[in-house]
Amino acid sequence: MTPQRSQVHETRAETQNNGPSAPSPRLEPRGLPPRVEIDVKHVILVLSGKGGVGKSTVSVNLAFALANHGRNVGLLDLDIHGPSIPKMLGLEDQRPAVLDKAIEPIHVTGNLSVMSMAFLLPDSTSPVIWRGPMKMGAIRQFLTDVNWGPLDYLVVDLPPGTGDEALTIAQLAPNLRGAVIVTTPQEVAVLDAIKAIRFVEKQEMPVLGIVENMSGMACPHCGETVDLFGKGGGERAAQDFDVPFLGSIPLDPEMMRAGDEGRPYILRHADTLTWRAIAEVMENLVARVES
Amino acid sequence: MTPQRSQVHETRAETQNNGPSAPSPRLEPRGLPPRVEIDVKHVILVLSGKGGVGKSTVSVNLAFALANHGRNVGLLDLDIHGPSIPKMLGLEDQRPAVLDKAIEPIHVTGNLSVMSMAFLLPDSTSPVIWRGPMKMGAIRQFLTDVNWGPLDYLVVDLPPGTGDEALTIAQLAPNLRGAVIVTTPQEVAVLDAIKAIRFVEKQEMPVLGIVENMSGMACPHCGETVDLFGKGGGERAAQDFDVPFLGSIPLDPEMMRAGDEGRPYILRHADTLTWRAIAEVMENLVARVES
Repeated sequence: MTPQRSQVHETRAETQNNGPSAPSPRLEPRGLPPRVEIDVKHVILVLSGKGGVGKSTVSVNLAFALANHGRNVGLLDLDIHGPSIPKMLGLEDQRPAVLDKAIEPIHVTGNLSVMSMAFLLPDSTSPVIWRGPMKMGAIRQFLTDVNWGPLDYLVVDLPPGTGDEALTIAQLAPNLRGAVIVTTPQEVAVLDAIKAIRFVEKQEMPVLGIVENMSGMACPHCGETVDLFGKGGGERAAQDFDVPFLGSIPLDPEMMRAGDEGRPYILRHADTLTWRAIAEVMENLVARVES
Repeated sequence: MTPQRSQVHETRAETQNNGPSAPSPRLEPRGLPPRVEIDVKHVILVLSGKGGVGKSTVSVNLAFALANHGRNVGLLDLDIHGPSIPKMLGLEDQRPAVLDKAIEPIHVTGNLSVMSMAFLLPDSTSPVIWRGPMKMGAIRQFLTDVNWGPLDYLVVDLPPGTGDEALTIAQLAPNLRGAVIVTTPQEVAVLDAIKAIRFVEKQEMPVLGIVENMSGMACPHCGETVDLFGKGGGERAAQDFDVPFLGSIPLDPEMMRAGDEGRPYILRHADTLTWRAIAEVMENLVARVES
Protein backbone atom coordinates (compact mmCIF):
# COMPACT_ATOMS: atom_id res chain seq x y z
CA MET A 1 0.00 0.00 0.00
CA THR A 2 1.23 3.46 -0.69
CA PRO A 3 -0.46 5.94 1.62
CA GLN A 4 -0.34 8.57 -1.13
CA ARG A 5 -2.51 6.54 -3.48
CA SER A 6 -5.22 5.99 -0.93
CA GLN A 7 -5.27 9.68 -0.02
CA VAL A 8 -5.67 10.70 -3.61
CA HIS A 9 -8.68 8.44 -3.71
CA GLU A 10 -10.27 9.98 -0.67
CA THR A 11 -9.67 13.49 -1.95
CA ARG A 12 -11.19 12.73 -5.29
CA ALA A 13 -14.17 11.21 -3.51
CA GLU A 14 -14.79 14.55 -1.89
CA THR A 15 -14.61 16.66 -5.02
CA GLN A 16 -15.99 14.68 -7.93
CA ASN A 17 -19.68 14.85 -7.09
CA ASN A 18 -20.38 18.14 -8.82
CA GLY A 19 -23.70 17.36 -10.47
CA PRO A 20 -25.52 19.72 -12.85
CA SER A 21 -26.93 21.69 -9.93
CA ALA A 22 -23.61 21.83 -8.11
CA PRO A 23 -22.57 25.27 -6.95
CA SER A 24 -19.51 27.16 -8.14
CA PRO A 25 -16.69 24.74 -8.95
CA ARG A 26 -14.04 27.39 -8.43
CA LEU A 27 -12.96 25.98 -5.07
CA GLU A 28 -12.40 22.53 -6.49
CA PRO A 29 -8.86 21.41 -5.58
CA ARG A 30 -8.29 19.56 -8.87
CA GLY A 31 -9.02 22.37 -11.32
CA LEU A 32 -6.93 25.53 -11.26
CA PRO A 33 -9.14 28.50 -10.43
CA PRO A 34 -8.75 31.66 -12.53
CA ARG A 35 -6.46 34.31 -11.08
CA VAL A 36 -8.25 37.20 -9.42
CA GLU A 37 -8.22 40.65 -10.99
CA ILE A 38 -6.67 43.21 -8.70
CA ASP A 39 -4.66 46.29 -9.57
CA VAL A 40 -1.17 45.29 -8.44
CA LYS A 41 2.08 45.29 -10.38
CA HIS A 42 4.03 42.77 -8.30
CA VAL A 43 2.94 40.20 -5.74
CA ILE A 44 5.73 38.95 -3.48
CA LEU A 45 5.26 35.94 -1.20
CA VAL A 46 7.23 35.56 2.01
CA LEU A 47 7.54 31.89 2.90
CA SER A 48 9.36 29.59 5.25
CA GLY A 49 9.19 25.91 5.84
CA LYS A 50 9.42 26.00 9.61
CA GLY A 51 7.54 28.37 11.89
CA GLY A 52 9.11 30.90 14.22
CA VAL A 53 11.97 31.81 11.93
CA GLY A 54 11.04 35.47 11.47
CA LYS A 55 8.86 35.43 8.37
CA SER A 56 6.55 38.17 9.64
CA THR A 57 9.51 40.30 10.71
CA VAL A 58 10.93 40.07 7.18
CA SER A 59 7.51 40.78 5.62
CA VAL A 60 6.95 43.89 7.74
CA ASN A 61 10.40 45.31 7.16
CA LEU A 62 10.25 44.57 3.43
CA ALA A 63 6.90 46.33 3.13
CA PHE A 64 8.30 49.39 4.91
CA ALA A 65 11.46 49.34 2.79
CA LEU A 66 9.40 49.30 -0.41
CA ALA A 67 7.12 52.06 0.91
CA ASN A 68 10.18 54.13 1.79
CA HIS A 69 11.13 53.89 -1.88
CA GLY A 70 7.87 55.65 -2.70
CA ARG A 71 5.95 52.58 -3.81
CA ASN A 72 2.30 51.92 -3.03
CA VAL A 73 2.45 48.83 -0.88
CA GLY A 74 -0.13 46.42 0.49
CA LEU A 75 0.85 43.99 3.25
CA LEU A 76 -1.39 40.94 3.48
CA ASP A 77 -1.08 38.69 6.53
CA LEU A 78 -2.24 35.21 5.48
CA ASP A 79 -1.35 33.50 8.75
CA ILE A 80 -5.00 32.90 9.51
CA HIS A 81 -4.51 30.85 12.68
CA GLY A 82 -1.73 32.98 14.11
CA PRO A 83 -1.77 36.46 12.55
CA SER A 84 1.09 38.42 14.11
CA ILE A 85 1.53 41.42 11.84
CA PRO A 86 -1.13 43.62 13.51
CA LYS A 87 0.59 43.06 16.87
CA MET A 88 4.00 43.78 15.33
CA LEU A 89 2.69 47.09 13.98
CA GLY A 90 0.79 48.05 17.13
CA LEU A 91 -2.49 47.79 15.20
CA GLU A 92 -4.13 44.93 17.07
CA ASP A 93 -7.11 47.01 18.18
CA GLN A 94 -7.90 48.35 14.70
CA ARG A 95 -11.05 47.25 12.93
CA PRO A 96 -11.49 47.89 9.20
CA ALA A 97 -14.31 50.02 7.89
CA VAL A 98 -16.65 48.47 5.33
CA LEU A 99 -17.49 50.96 2.57
CA ASP A 100 -19.88 50.02 -0.20
CA LYS A 101 -19.34 46.27 0.37
CA ALA A 102 -15.54 46.65 0.22
CA ILE A 103 -13.33 46.21 3.27
CA GLU A 104 -11.02 49.17 3.83
CA PRO A 105 -7.50 48.00 4.74
CA ILE A 106 -5.77 49.62 7.71
CA HIS A 107 -3.66 52.52 6.42
CA VAL A 108 -0.31 52.59 8.20
CA THR A 109 1.21 55.40 6.15
CA GLY A 110 0.03 57.25 3.04
CA ASN A 111 1.36 54.48 0.82
CA LEU A 112 1.23 51.39 3.04
CA SER A 113 -1.94 49.45 3.91
CA VAL A 114 -2.36 46.22 5.87
CA MET A 115 -4.97 43.48 5.99
CA SER A 116 -5.06 40.57 8.42
CA MET A 117 -7.47 38.02 9.82
CA ALA A 118 -6.76 39.60 13.21
CA PHE A 119 -8.75 42.70 12.18
CA LEU A 120 -11.87 40.61 11.61
CA LEU A 121 -11.93 38.67 14.87
CA PRO A 122 -14.04 39.63 17.88
CA ASP A 123 -10.97 39.67 20.13
CA SER A 124 -7.27 38.81 20.05
CA THR A 125 -7.69 35.44 21.78
CA SER A 126 -10.35 33.87 19.53
CA PRO A 127 -8.93 30.86 17.69
CA VAL A 128 -9.80 30.48 14.00
CA ILE A 129 -10.76 26.81 13.78
CA TRP A 130 -11.04 26.45 10.04
CA ARG A 131 -10.35 23.70 7.58
CA GLY A 132 -8.78 24.36 4.19
CA PRO A 133 -11.87 25.32 2.15
CA MET A 134 -12.80 28.04 4.66
CA LYS A 135 -9.29 29.45 4.41
CA MET A 136 -9.44 29.38 0.61
CA GLY A 137 -12.61 31.47 0.73
CA ALA A 138 -11.05 33.95 3.14
CA ILE A 139 -7.90 34.35 1.02
CA ARG A 140 -10.00 35.03 -2.06
CA GLN A 141 -11.88 37.71 -0.14
CA PHE A 142 -8.65 39.28 1.13
CA LEU A 143 -7.69 39.76 -2.50
CA THR A 144 -10.99 40.75 -4.12
CA ASP A 145 -13.11 42.33 -1.38
CA VAL A 146 -10.43 44.58 0.12
CA ASN A 147 -10.16 48.08 -1.29
CA TRP A 148 -6.38 47.97 -1.83
CA GLY A 149 -6.44 50.71 -4.47
CA PRO A 150 -3.71 50.65 -7.15
CA LEU A 151 -0.67 48.89 -5.71
CA ASP A 152 2.91 48.65 -6.87
CA TYR A 153 3.54 45.77 -4.47
CA LEU A 154 1.50 43.33 -2.45
CA VAL A 155 3.71 41.62 0.13
CA VAL A 156 2.08 38.41 1.35
CA ASP A 157 3.13 36.91 4.69
CA LEU A 158 2.28 33.20 4.73
CA PRO A 159 2.01 30.71 7.58
CA PRO A 160 4.74 28.04 7.72
CA GLY A 161 4.47 25.10 5.35
CA THR A 162 3.24 24.29 1.89
CA GLY A 163 -0.46 23.72 2.49
CA ASP A 164 -3.73 25.42 1.65
CA GLU A 165 -2.69 29.02 2.24
CA ALA A 166 0.49 28.88 0.12
CA LEU A 167 -1.15 26.89 -2.64
CA THR A 168 -4.22 29.14 -2.75
CA ILE A 169 -2.32 32.41 -3.03
CA ALA A 170 0.06 30.89 -5.60
CA GLN A 171 -2.95 29.92 -7.70
CA LEU A 172 -5.10 33.03 -7.22
CA ALA A 173 -2.74 36.02 -7.18
CA PRO A 174 -1.93 37.78 -10.45
CA ASN A 175 1.54 39.10 -11.35
CA LEU A 176 3.46 36.88 -8.97
CA ARG A 177 6.94 38.32 -8.94
CA GLY A 178 8.46 35.59 -6.79
CA ALA A 179 9.00 34.36 -3.26
CA VAL A 180 11.37 35.21 -0.45
CA ILE A 181 12.34 32.25 1.73
CA VAL A 182 13.18 32.92 5.37
CA THR A 183 15.09 30.42 7.50
CA THR A 184 17.26 30.24 10.58
CA PRO A 185 20.68 28.56 10.28
CA GLN A 186 19.39 25.53 12.25
CA GLU A 187 19.45 22.31 10.25
CA VAL A 188 15.80 21.46 10.92
CA ALA A 189 14.80 24.91 9.63
CA VAL A 190 17.05 24.77 6.56
CA LEU A 191 15.60 21.38 5.62
CA ASP A 192 12.12 22.92 5.61
CA ALA A 193 13.39 25.99 3.71
CA ILE A 194 14.59 23.67 0.96
CA LYS A 195 11.09 22.19 0.79
CA ALA A 196 9.76 25.74 0.43
CA ILE A 197 12.21 26.40 -2.44
CA ARG A 198 11.01 23.27 -4.20
CA PHE A 199 7.38 24.26 -3.60
CA VAL A 200 8.00 27.69 -5.16
CA GLU A 201 9.74 26.15 -8.16
CA LYS A 202 6.85 23.72 -8.67
CA GLN A 203 4.52 26.72 -8.84
CA GLU A 204 6.76 28.09 -11.62
CA MET A 205 7.61 31.16 -9.58
CA PRO A 206 11.14 32.53 -9.16
CA VAL A 207 12.82 32.36 -5.76
CA LEU A 208 13.83 35.96 -5.11
CA GLY A 209 16.26 34.79 -2.48
CA ILE A 210 16.91 33.34 0.95
CA VAL A 211 17.16 35.42 4.12
CA GLU A 212 19.05 33.83 7.01
CA ASN A 213 17.51 35.13 10.21
CA MET A 214 18.68 34.62 13.82
CA SER A 215 22.14 34.18 12.36
CA GLY A 216 24.62 34.37 15.21
CA MET A 217 24.19 36.46 18.32
CA ALA A 218 26.48 38.72 20.29
CA CYS A 219 26.00 38.64 24.08
CA PRO A 220 24.81 42.14 25.01
CA HIS A 221 26.91 41.92 28.20
CA CYS A 222 30.31 40.55 27.15
CA GLY A 223 30.09 40.88 23.35
CA GLU A 224 31.12 37.26 22.80
CA THR A 225 29.37 35.28 20.07
CA VAL A 226 26.70 32.89 21.33
CA ASP A 227 26.23 30.00 18.94
CA LEU A 228 22.50 29.46 19.38
CA PHE A 229 21.10 28.40 16.02
CA GLY A 230 24.50 28.17 14.32
CA LYS A 231 25.40 30.27 11.28
CA GLY A 232 25.62 29.90 7.50
CA GLY A 233 22.94 27.22 6.93
CA GLY A 234 20.78 29.54 4.82
CA GLU A 235 23.70 30.70 2.72
CA ARG A 236 24.79 27.10 2.05
CA ALA A 237 21.26 26.15 1.01
CA ALA A 238 21.20 29.13 -1.40
CA GLN A 239 24.43 27.91 -2.98
CA ASP A 240 23.29 24.28 -3.13
CA PHE A 241 20.01 25.17 -4.81
CA ASP A 242 21.41 27.99 -6.92
CA VAL A 243 19.08 30.70 -5.63
CA PRO A 244 20.15 34.21 -4.54
CA PHE A 245 21.29 34.78 -0.97
CA LEU A 246 19.92 38.07 0.32
CA GLY A 247 21.90 38.27 3.55
CA SER A 248 21.93 37.38 7.23
CA ILE A 249 20.20 39.09 10.12
CA PRO A 250 21.63 38.43 13.59
CA LEU A 251 19.56 37.37 16.57
CA ASP A 252 19.09 40.53 18.59
CA PRO A 253 16.96 40.99 21.71
CA GLU A 254 16.19 44.53 20.51
CA MET A 255 14.57 43.18 17.35
CA MET A 256 12.46 40.72 19.36
CA ARG A 257 11.30 43.58 21.56
CA ALA A 258 10.45 45.74 18.54
CA GLY A 259 8.05 42.99 17.44
CA ASP A 260 6.39 42.74 20.83
CA GLU A 261 6.16 46.53 21.13
CA GLY A 262 4.63 47.15 17.72
CA ARG A 263 7.49 49.18 16.21
CA PRO A 264 8.96 47.98 12.90
CA TYR A 265 12.68 47.62 13.49
CA ILE A 266 13.74 49.19 10.21
CA LEU A 267 12.07 52.49 11.15
CA ARG A 268 14.34 52.96 14.14
CA HIS A 269 17.47 53.91 12.18
CA ALA A 270 19.71 53.04 15.08
CA ASP A 271 23.13 52.57 13.58
CA THR A 272 23.71 49.10 14.99
CA LEU A 273 25.04 45.95 13.38
CA THR A 274 21.53 44.48 13.34
CA TRP A 275 20.00 47.56 11.78
CA ARG A 276 22.64 47.68 9.06
CA ALA A 277 22.15 43.95 8.38
CA ILE A 278 18.38 44.22 8.01
CA ALA A 279 18.63 47.40 5.93
CA GLU A 280 21.09 45.66 3.61
CA VAL A 281 18.85 42.60 3.19
CA MET A 282 15.90 44.82 2.38
CA GLU A 283 17.90 46.91 -0.12
CA ASN A 284 19.07 43.70 -1.81
CA LEU A 285 15.49 42.55 -2.04
CA VAL A 286 14.16 45.86 -3.32
CA ALA A 287 16.93 45.95 -5.95
CA ARG A 288 16.03 42.43 -7.02
CA VAL A 289 12.28 42.94 -7.31
CA GLU A 290 12.69 46.34 -9.01
CA SER A 291 15.21 45.05 -11.54
CA MET B 1 -20.77 42.33 4.91
CA THR B 2 -19.18 40.10 7.44
CA PRO B 3 -16.45 38.02 5.85
CA GLN B 4 -17.29 35.11 8.15
CA ARG B 5 -20.82 34.77 6.86
CA SER B 6 -19.76 34.75 3.25
CA GLN B 7 -17.09 32.13 3.91
CA VAL B 8 -19.55 29.87 5.65
CA HIS B 9 -21.67 30.10 2.55
CA GLU B 10 -18.82 29.13 0.26
CA THR B 11 -17.86 26.22 2.46
CA ARG B 12 -21.38 24.91 2.62
CA ALA B 13 -21.60 25.21 -1.16
CA GLU B 14 -18.66 22.87 -1.40
CA THR B 15 -19.99 20.20 0.91
CA GLN B 16 -23.77 20.05 0.60
CA ASN B 17 -24.03 18.31 -2.76
CA ASN B 18 -23.90 14.76 -1.46
CA GLY B 19 -26.52 13.10 -3.65
CA PRO B 20 -27.67 9.48 -3.31
CA SER B 21 -24.59 8.29 -5.20
CA ALA B 22 -22.23 10.49 -3.23
CA PRO B 23 -19.20 8.70 -1.81
CA SER B 24 -18.40 8.36 1.88
CA PRO B 25 -19.51 11.44 3.77
CA ARG B 26 -17.02 10.88 6.55
CA LEU B 27 -14.72 13.67 5.34
CA GLU B 28 -17.52 16.18 5.36
CA PRO B 29 -16.48 19.15 7.54
CA ARG B 30 -19.99 19.63 8.95
CA GLY B 31 -20.59 16.10 10.30
CA LEU B 32 -18.35 14.66 12.99
CA PRO B 33 -16.65 11.45 11.78
CA PRO B 34 -16.63 8.45 14.14
CA ARG B 35 -13.51 8.05 16.25
CA VAL B 36 -11.06 5.41 15.01
CA GLU B 37 -10.56 2.19 16.95
CA ILE B 38 -6.97 1.78 18.03
CA ASP B 39 -5.59 0.11 21.14
CA VAL B 40 -4.36 3.10 23.13
CA LYS B 41 -5.17 4.11 26.68
CA HIS B 42 -4.30 7.80 26.46
CA VAL B 43 -3.80 10.13 23.52
CA ILE B 44 -1.93 13.35 24.34
CA LEU B 45 -1.74 16.25 21.88
CA VAL B 46 1.19 18.67 21.88
CA LEU B 47 0.08 22.00 20.48
CA SER B 48 1.25 25.56 20.10
CA GLY B 49 -0.23 28.54 18.41
CA LYS B 50 2.98 29.89 16.90
CA GLY B 51 5.62 27.84 15.13
CA GLY B 52 9.22 27.48 16.22
CA VAL B 53 8.51 27.46 19.93
CA GLY B 54 9.81 23.95 20.64
CA LYS B 55 6.71 21.78 20.25
CA SER B 56 8.62 18.88 18.72
CA THR B 57 11.32 19.13 21.39
CA VAL B 58 8.65 18.83 24.08
CA SER B 59 6.92 15.96 22.25
CA VAL B 60 10.14 13.97 21.88
CA ASN B 61 11.23 14.47 25.46
CA LEU B 62 7.75 13.68 26.80
CA ALA B 63 7.61 10.45 24.79
CA PHE B 64 11.01 9.40 26.18
CA ALA B 65 10.01 10.35 29.72
CA LEU B 66 6.86 8.20 29.49
CA ALA B 67 8.83 5.32 27.96
CA ASN B 68 11.38 5.61 30.78
CA HIS B 69 8.47 5.02 33.16
CA GLY B 70 7.93 1.66 31.47
CA ARG B 71 4.94 2.68 29.36
CA ASN B 72 4.36 1.57 25.78
CA VAL B 73 4.56 4.81 23.85
CA GLY B 74 3.81 5.82 20.28
CA LEU B 75 5.05 9.18 18.99
CA LEU B 76 3.10 10.49 16.00
CA ASP B 77 4.51 13.45 14.08
CA LEU B 78 1.56 15.21 12.41
CA ASP B 79 3.56 18.13 11.05
CA ILE B 80 2.98 16.96 7.51
CA HIS B 81 4.64 19.91 5.75
CA GLY B 82 7.60 20.18 8.10
CA PRO B 83 8.12 16.91 9.99
CA SER B 84 11.12 17.40 12.28
CA ILE B 85 10.91 14.49 14.71
CA PRO B 86 12.80 11.97 12.52
CA LYS B 87 15.66 14.46 12.19
CA MET B 88 15.61 15.14 15.95
CA LEU B 89 15.90 11.40 16.63
CA GLY B 90 18.52 10.74 13.96
CA LEU B 91 16.01 8.59 12.07
CA GLU B 92 15.66 10.62 8.88
CA ASP B 93 16.94 7.80 6.65
CA GLN B 94 14.59 5.16 8.04
CA ARG B 95 11.80 3.75 5.91
CA PRO B 96 8.98 1.75 7.49
CA ALA B 97 8.33 -1.84 6.52
CA VAL B 98 4.87 -2.71 5.24
CA LEU B 99 3.70 -6.05 6.67
CA ASP B 100 0.38 -7.52 5.66
CA LYS B 101 -0.99 -4.11 4.54
CA ALA B 102 0.01 -2.48 7.86
CA ILE B 103 2.80 0.08 8.13
CA GLU B 104 5.35 -0.86 10.79
CA PRO B 105 6.34 2.21 12.84
CA ILE B 106 10.04 2.87 13.45
CA HIS B 107 10.98 1.26 16.77
CA VAL B 108 13.29 3.55 18.71
CA THR B 109 13.45 1.44 21.87
CA GLY B 110 11.59 -1.68 22.96
CA ASN B 111 8.64 0.40 24.11
CA LEU B 112 8.80 3.53 21.93
CA SER B 113 7.75 3.70 18.27
CA VAL B 114 7.58 6.67 15.91
CA MET B 115 5.62 7.51 12.78
CA SER B 116 6.08 10.56 10.59
CA MET B 117 5.32 11.78 7.10
CA ALA B 118 9.08 12.07 6.66
CA PHE B 119 9.36 8.26 6.59
CA LEU B 120 7.06 8.08 3.57
CA LEU B 121 8.71 10.68 1.35
CA PRO B 122 11.19 9.87 -1.42
CA ASP B 123 13.80 12.22 0.08
CA SER B 124 14.17 14.78 2.84
CA THR B 125 13.72 17.80 0.55
CA SER B 126 10.42 16.86 -1.14
CA PRO B 127 7.69 19.31 -0.16
CA VAL B 128 4.26 17.91 0.69
CA ILE B 129 1.94 20.20 -1.25
CA TRP B 130 -1.37 19.04 0.10
CA ARG B 131 -4.65 20.71 0.85
CA GLY B 132 -6.71 19.86 3.92
CA PRO B 133 -8.64 16.79 2.68
CA MET B 134 -5.39 15.04 1.69
CA LYS B 135 -4.01 15.69 5.15
CA MET B 136 -7.19 14.35 6.75
CA GLY B 137 -6.77 11.11 4.82
CA ALA B 138 -3.12 10.81 5.85
CA ILE B 139 -3.91 11.41 9.53
CA ARG B 140 -6.60 8.73 9.46
CA GLN B 141 -4.08 6.31 7.95
CA PHE B 142 -1.44 7.18 10.55
CA LEU B 143 -3.95 6.07 13.18
CA THR B 144 -5.55 3.04 11.55
CA ASP B 145 -2.98 1.62 9.10
CA VAL B 146 0.06 1.78 11.38
CA ASN B 147 0.79 -1.29 13.45
CA TRP B 148 1.20 0.57 16.75
CA GLY B 149 0.45 -2.51 18.85
CA PRO B 150 -1.12 -1.97 22.30
CA LEU B 151 -0.12 1.48 23.53
CA ASP B 152 -0.34 3.12 26.90
CA TYR B 153 0.29 6.52 25.32
CA LEU B 154 0.18 8.07 21.90
CA VAL B 155 1.95 11.45 21.94
CA VAL B 156 0.89 13.54 18.94
CA ASP B 157 3.10 16.40 17.75
CA LEU B 158 0.99 18.88 15.77
CA PRO B 159 1.97 21.66 13.38
CA PRO B 160 1.34 25.21 14.63
CA GLY B 161 -2.19 26.56 14.48
CA THR B 162 -5.74 25.38 14.79
CA GLY B 163 -6.43 24.10 11.29
CA ASP B 164 -7.04 20.77 9.60
CA GLU B 165 -4.42 18.70 11.41
CA ALA B 166 -5.45 19.73 14.93
CA LEU B 167 -9.15 19.50 14.18
CA THR B 168 -8.83 16.11 12.48
CA ILE B 169 -6.89 14.44 15.29
CA ALA B 170 -9.20 15.99 17.91
CA GLN B 171 -12.17 14.46 16.07
CA LEU B 172 -10.67 11.08 15.15
CA ALA B 173 -8.51 9.98 18.08
CA PRO B 174 -10.07 7.90 20.87
CA ASN B 175 -9.29 8.34 24.57
CA LEU B 176 -8.03 11.90 24.29
CA ARG B 177 -6.42 12.59 27.63
CA GLY B 178 -5.71 16.26 26.93
CA ALA B 179 -3.34 18.72 25.34
CA VAL B 180 -0.01 20.25 26.28
CA ILE B 181 0.47 23.81 25.06
CA VAL B 182 4.00 24.98 24.30
CA THR B 183 4.91 28.66 24.04
CA THR B 184 7.86 30.98 24.35
CA PRO B 185 7.57 33.97 26.69
CA GLN B 186 7.29 36.35 23.68
CA GLU B 187 3.98 38.21 23.56
CA VAL B 188 3.22 37.21 19.96
CA ALA B 189 3.71 33.55 20.92
CA VAL B 190 1.66 33.76 24.14
CA LEU B 191 -1.21 35.35 22.22
CA ASP B 192 -1.26 32.33 19.89
CA ALA B 193 -0.91 29.94 22.85
CA ILE B 194 -4.09 31.44 24.31
CA LYS B 195 -5.84 30.71 21.02
CA ALA B 196 -4.60 27.13 21.31
CA ILE B 197 -6.04 26.90 24.85
CA ARG B 198 -9.38 28.11 23.60
CA PHE B 199 -9.26 25.66 20.70
CA VAL B 200 -8.60 22.76 23.11
CA GLU B 201 -11.44 23.84 25.39
CA LYS B 202 -13.81 24.06 22.42
CA GLN B 203 -12.95 20.44 21.62
CA GLU B 204 -13.99 19.59 25.20
CA MET B 205 -10.52 18.33 26.01
CA PRO B 206 -8.61 19.23 29.18
CA VAL B 207 -5.50 21.41 28.93
CA LEU B 208 -2.84 19.34 30.70
CA GLY B 209 -0.72 22.41 31.07
CA ILE B 210 1.49 25.08 29.54
CA VAL B 211 5.24 24.67 29.01
CA GLU B 212 7.24 27.89 28.69
CA ASN B 213 10.16 27.16 26.39
CA MET B 214 13.14 29.42 25.51
CA SER B 215 12.54 31.07 28.87
CA GLY B 216 15.58 33.19 29.65
CA MET B 217 19.12 32.39 28.59
CA ALA B 218 22.45 32.52 30.33
CA CYS B 219 25.40 33.62 28.18
CA PRO B 220 27.71 30.60 27.97
CA HIS B 221 30.72 32.96 28.14
CA CYS B 222 29.95 35.44 30.92
CA GLY B 223 26.97 33.75 32.60
CA GLU B 224 24.87 36.93 32.47
CA THR B 225 21.17 36.62 31.63
CA VAL B 226 20.32 37.53 28.05
CA ASP B 227 16.74 38.71 27.75
CA LEU B 228 15.92 37.34 24.32
CA PHE B 229 12.28 36.30 24.35
CA GLY B 230 11.58 37.64 27.84
CA LYS B 231 10.39 35.45 30.70
CA GLY B 232 7.17 34.55 32.47
CA GLY B 233 4.66 35.04 29.63
CA GLY B 234 3.62 31.38 29.62
CA GLU B 235 3.21 31.27 33.39
CA ARG B 236 1.06 34.42 33.37
CA ALA B 237 -1.15 32.97 30.61
CA ALA B 238 -1.59 29.78 32.68
CA GLN B 239 -2.74 31.88 35.66
CA ASP B 240 -5.01 34.07 33.55
CA PHE B 241 -6.73 31.10 31.93
CA ASP B 242 -6.66 28.89 35.01
CA VAL B 243 -4.76 26.00 33.45
CA PRO B 244 -1.78 24.18 35.02
CA PHE B 245 1.71 25.56 34.51
CA LEU B 246 4.16 22.72 33.93
CA GLY B 247 7.38 24.70 34.12
CA SER B 248 9.95 26.69 32.16
CA ILE B 249 12.80 25.44 29.99
CA PRO B 250 15.64 27.89 29.35
CA LEU B 251 17.04 28.66 25.92
CA ASP B 252 20.22 26.64 25.69
CA PRO B 253 22.52 26.24 22.67
CA GLU B 254 23.17 22.66 23.81
CA MET B 255 19.48 21.79 23.46
CA MET B 256 19.36 23.32 19.98
CA ARG B 257 22.36 21.22 19.01
CA ALA B 258 20.79 18.06 20.45
CA GLY B 259 17.89 18.57 18.04
CA ASP B 260 20.15 19.06 15.05
CA GLU B 261 22.31 16.09 16.01
CA GLY B 262 19.47 13.63 16.54
CA ARG B 263 19.97 13.02 20.26
CA PRO B 264 16.98 13.57 22.58
CA TYR B 265 18.17 16.00 25.22
CA ILE B 266 16.54 14.20 28.14
CA LEU B 267 18.63 11.07 27.48
CA ARG B 268 21.87 12.91 28.13
CA HIS B 269 21.48 13.13 31.93
CA ALA B 270 23.96 15.95 32.14
CA ASP B 271 23.32 17.62 35.47
CA THR B 272 22.85 21.11 34.09
CA LEU B 273 20.20 23.73 34.83
CA THR B 274 18.56 23.03 31.46
CA TRP B 275 18.52 19.28 31.97
CA ARG B 276 16.97 19.64 35.42
CA ALA B 277 14.37 22.06 34.04
CA ILE B 278 13.29 19.76 31.23
CA ALA B 279 13.30 16.68 33.47
CA GLU B 280 11.08 18.54 35.96
CA VAL B 281 8.61 19.63 33.27
CA MET B 282 8.39 16.07 31.99
CA GLU B 283 7.91 14.61 35.48
CA ASN B 284 5.15 17.15 36.13
CA LEU B 285 3.49 16.11 32.89
CA VAL B 286 3.84 12.38 33.54
CA ALA B 287 2.41 12.84 37.04
CA ARG B 288 -0.52 14.77 35.60
CA VAL B 289 -1.39 12.31 32.84
CA GLU B 290 -0.90 9.28 35.09
CA SER B 291 -3.04 10.71 37.91
